[in-house]
Amino acid sequence: MAISVETFFLNPDAQGTLQAQIQQMVAEGILSGRLRQGEKLPSTRKLAQHLRVSRITVTLAYTELLANDYLSSKGRSGYFVSDNAPEPLSFPPRPEAEEALDWSRAIGQRFSGGTPHTKPRDWARFRYPFIYGQTDPTLFDHANWRLCALQALGQKDFEPLTSDYYDQDDPELIEFIARHTLPRRGILAEPEEILVTMGAQNALWLATQVLLTQRRTAAFEEPCYPSLRTILNQSRCHLAPVGVDGEGLIHQDIPPETDVIFATPSHQCPTTATMPLARRRALLNKAREINAVIVEDDYEFEMSFAGAPSPALKSLDGDGRVVYVGSFSKSLFPGLRLGYLVGSRPFIREARALRASVLRHVPGHIQRTAAYFLRLGHYDALIRRMSGVLSERRRVMSEAMDLHGLELAGQSGTGGSAFWMRAPEGVNTTELAAQLQTRSVLIEPGAPFFESGSAPQNYYRLGYSSIPASKIPEGVRIIGEALRNWP
Amino acid sequence: MAISVETFFLNPDAQGTLQAQIQQMVAEGILSGRLRQGEKLPSTRKLAQHLRVSRITVTLAYTELLANDYLSSKGRSGYFVSDNAPEPLSFPPRPEAEEALDWSRAIGQRFSGGTPHTKPRDWARFRYPFIYGQTDPTLFDHANWRLCALQALGQKDFEPLTSDYYDQDDPELIEFIARHTLPRRGILAEPEEILVTMGAQNALWLATQVLLTQRRTAAFEEPCYPSLRTILNQSRCHLAPVGVDGEGLIHQDIPPETDVIFATPSHQCPTTATMPLARRRALLNKAREINAVIVEDDYEFEMSFAGAPSPALKSLDGDGRVVYVGSFSKSLFPGLRLGYLVGSRPFIREARALRASVLRHVPGHIQRTAAYFLRLGHYDALIRRMSGVLSERRRVMSEAMDLHGLELAGQSGTGGSAFWMRAPEGVNTTELAAQLQTRSVLIEPGAPFFESGSAPQNYYRLGYSSIPASKIPEGVRIIGEALRNWP
Repeated sequence: MAISVETFFLNPDAQGTLQAQIQQMVAEGILSGRLRQGEKLPSTRKLAQHLRVSRITVTLAYTELLANDYLSSKGRSGYFVSDNAPEPLSFPPRPEAEEALDWSRAIGQRFSGGTPHTKPRDWARFRYPFIYGQTDPTLFDHANWRLCALQALGQKDFEPLTSDYYDQDDPELIEFIARHTLPRRGILAEPEEILVTMGAQNALWLATQVLLTQRRTAAFEEPCYPSLRTILNQSRCHLAPVGVDGEGLIHQDIPPETDVIFATPSHQCPTTATMPLARRRALLNKAREINAVIVEDDYEFEMSFAGAPSPALKSLDGDGRVVYVGSFSKSLFPGLRLGYLVGSRPFIREARALRASVLRHVPGHIQRTAAYFLRLGHYDALIRRMSGVLSERRRVMSEAMDLHGLELAGQSGTGGSAFWMRAPEGVNTTELAAQLQTRSVLIEPGAPFFESGSAPQNYYRLGYSSIPASKIPEGVRIIGEALRNWP
Repeated sequence: MAISVETFFLNPDAQGTLQAQIQQMVAEGILSGRLRQGEKLPSTRKLAQHLRVSRITVTLAYTELLANDYLSSKGRSGYFVSDNAPEPLSFPPRPEAEEALDWSRAIGQRFSGGTPHTKPRDWARFRYPFIYGQTDPTLFDHANWRLCALQALGQKDFEPLTSDYYDQDDPELIEFIARHTLPRRGILAEPEEILVTMGAQNALWLATQVLLTQRRTAAFEEPCYPSLRTILNQSRCHLAPVGVDGEGLIHQDIPPETDVIFATPSHQCPTTATMPLARRRALLNKAREINAVIVEDDYEFEMSFAGAPSPALKSLDGDGRVVYVGSFSKSLFPGLRLGYLVGSRPFIREARALRASVLRHVPGHIQRTAAYFLRLGHYDALIRRMSGVLSERRRVMSEAMDLHGLELAGQSGTGGSAFWMRAPEGVNTTELAAQLQTRSVLIEPGAPFFESGSAPQNYYRLGYSSIPASKIPEGVRIIGEALRNWP
């Protein structure tokens, strides 16, 4: 690769002759790793022109660098970083304290230290990855996604691809969501009641900013989706964790001062409990009684292969008090970052204005590709195929767990893609996970789903969306063995 | 298109016989516009199974709907929404006040009423669009973008496409930015000092959240980029607007209590002034003196066809006090939503954590496509081609403006893609813009760039990134005529 001449600048504060400055500039580029062995340097003519120095100065500098073996020359084809050039210093990262600015003072608000990671980045290299939420390449319909993306890159779609939508969304995606996706959940919404978001996480974040302040109270499930806890902590509202049982959020325990209730009725995260209709009605009544808004994260409703999904809480909402969060990132792929919010107009208006300020809109190409994928029926076909496979994996998991004496802590009647598990008292699943990792088994410790102070240590989650059925029995066997031999 | 059976739900609170409920459900679907003429209904067998009612009930309901001309039947091929079915009521949008929930109370924080739109959505249908910031289809390298996108959709890139990166970025894009993009601006940064964002807007938003609080003060240019003003207003920090002259931000006028200075040294937005080196140094000294952080929006540095771009302010920053904002959305296309932040590690750490909470990461596919487009040199070629064309348009603009007596208010020596103009005293350019629109000429009134209370009414901006050179003379002539005949 040729190094562009435009990447060279003389430091206006530099000392020494021009020739020395050029030598230093090149040598520093090599030592810093910016210029690599074998890469071609700009010609002396080009560099001289760019730096506004005489060509002879550059030639002399290059000659000196040749002599020092920083550069090599290949006759008429020019100058290259020599194969014998010094290796770049393996960057002793500049110590942070070196800077004149005191960042501990300059930073006004801190956000780090939030959600912990529960799985290694290289999870795909483990033999028994009982993890959750990554895409299984054997299930995803890559070919049709590619075709849809290609179509959305076509000349006809130049405008949706490139335009600045400001605060708007792709009308084709909105239309599909309104006419086909939401009716499956029993929801009838008009375009002005829908906002496209960067995944469910972004939808939850937007809802939190619009609905909560430092003086308001959020009730949320304990245990819950760790990223929701981070979002709520950062909003600095009052927090009211509420327990869950086999039917999901225990509505009686919601404190009366609550302003916003966060719930996952389809599949409670992480316990997988599906909230029955009676509890849904009771939750709605409770919200009406205390005049709270409900944010419904319709988590994994598509994965209801063990029975028809119940209609969304939002579909039972006569008051307009439910804000609905949907996502394509979970069922298609997380790297897509595509979800949506459904709610009353005044709410959507504020969420839209906030989104416009934070990021304007979701990239047009992604919206249009998804619209095509949905409209051509590929999404439905994918969901059906995934449901079949996940249902089989679930059966194999259940059998293996019975055989090896693993104890289930949560049970959804309608499917999902994970089991919520309880290890015997005294087992620390964070340590268990570390131990199993050495045997190529990945499990998710349960503690990050709980409030940090009160987290029980013996829960864990076993996902089956990324492990083939054939590997499940052996993986479960290893987990059973590790549990029996604990500590 | 066949209507999926899964979009049908019986309302659990409904009155009347099951048959009547089914009739009502279908009729309502048609009246609401959800089911459209010619669309195929689920078979009686499927619908009965789905609703868990007897098939004869569904058949009776369909027969009744046939008789009422809601449906038609085509022999054995099933039931369709009749061509004579009532037209959907042209949605009297449900009045907002109807809902039981009081949204004026439920909304905790308001964000609407921010940035005004300065151009119509259908700008491309106007003959003389002197607007800014949309993509010219005749200049953009659509074919190569498509090839790069295709490559990024390949099997090899399945993981970068689909993966949940959590708080991380595509390493290939980061490497390119660090090794090739930033060195062109004289900036040497390590990967941990770079964060990919959803365009420059998102970068400015993240920087504002991390650096400012309600007790801190932001100095910013007056006039400035309207979205920055919205972001700062929403952050509720103290605001210190600072004037600009022909060399950009007037550093002497920055108040000493300032914590963060927002500046656009490359091309001041909207006056297009390029800050000379001496002013840049003076600005850095001022920031050091009052111990402020500078956020540098390196606005349109690529469009410096009238002279080599000066190195970025960030490249002169020995203290680590400059946070740098770059963008590919402006030079490639705004719908891409791709930009980046460069800053010291402690700053990037907090911005990364906030981004993770707000939206996790920028979609992998977009990052990888851009990485390929950059790496293959298409970006550089595009910039060169655009510079050539814009430089020619600028020349034609200048000539036409001289000929028709239009007065320039701002002048960049180094290019850009717009002129900042002053109309004679007494001309209201918002009204002028409305008047010109009727003659198929689009200009941008200047008032939205100023603080609303003190906005002078006679400034306007003429962009030339979306209008071909051949149309410029006539467009400028019409503007000149309208100004001469004012009011």
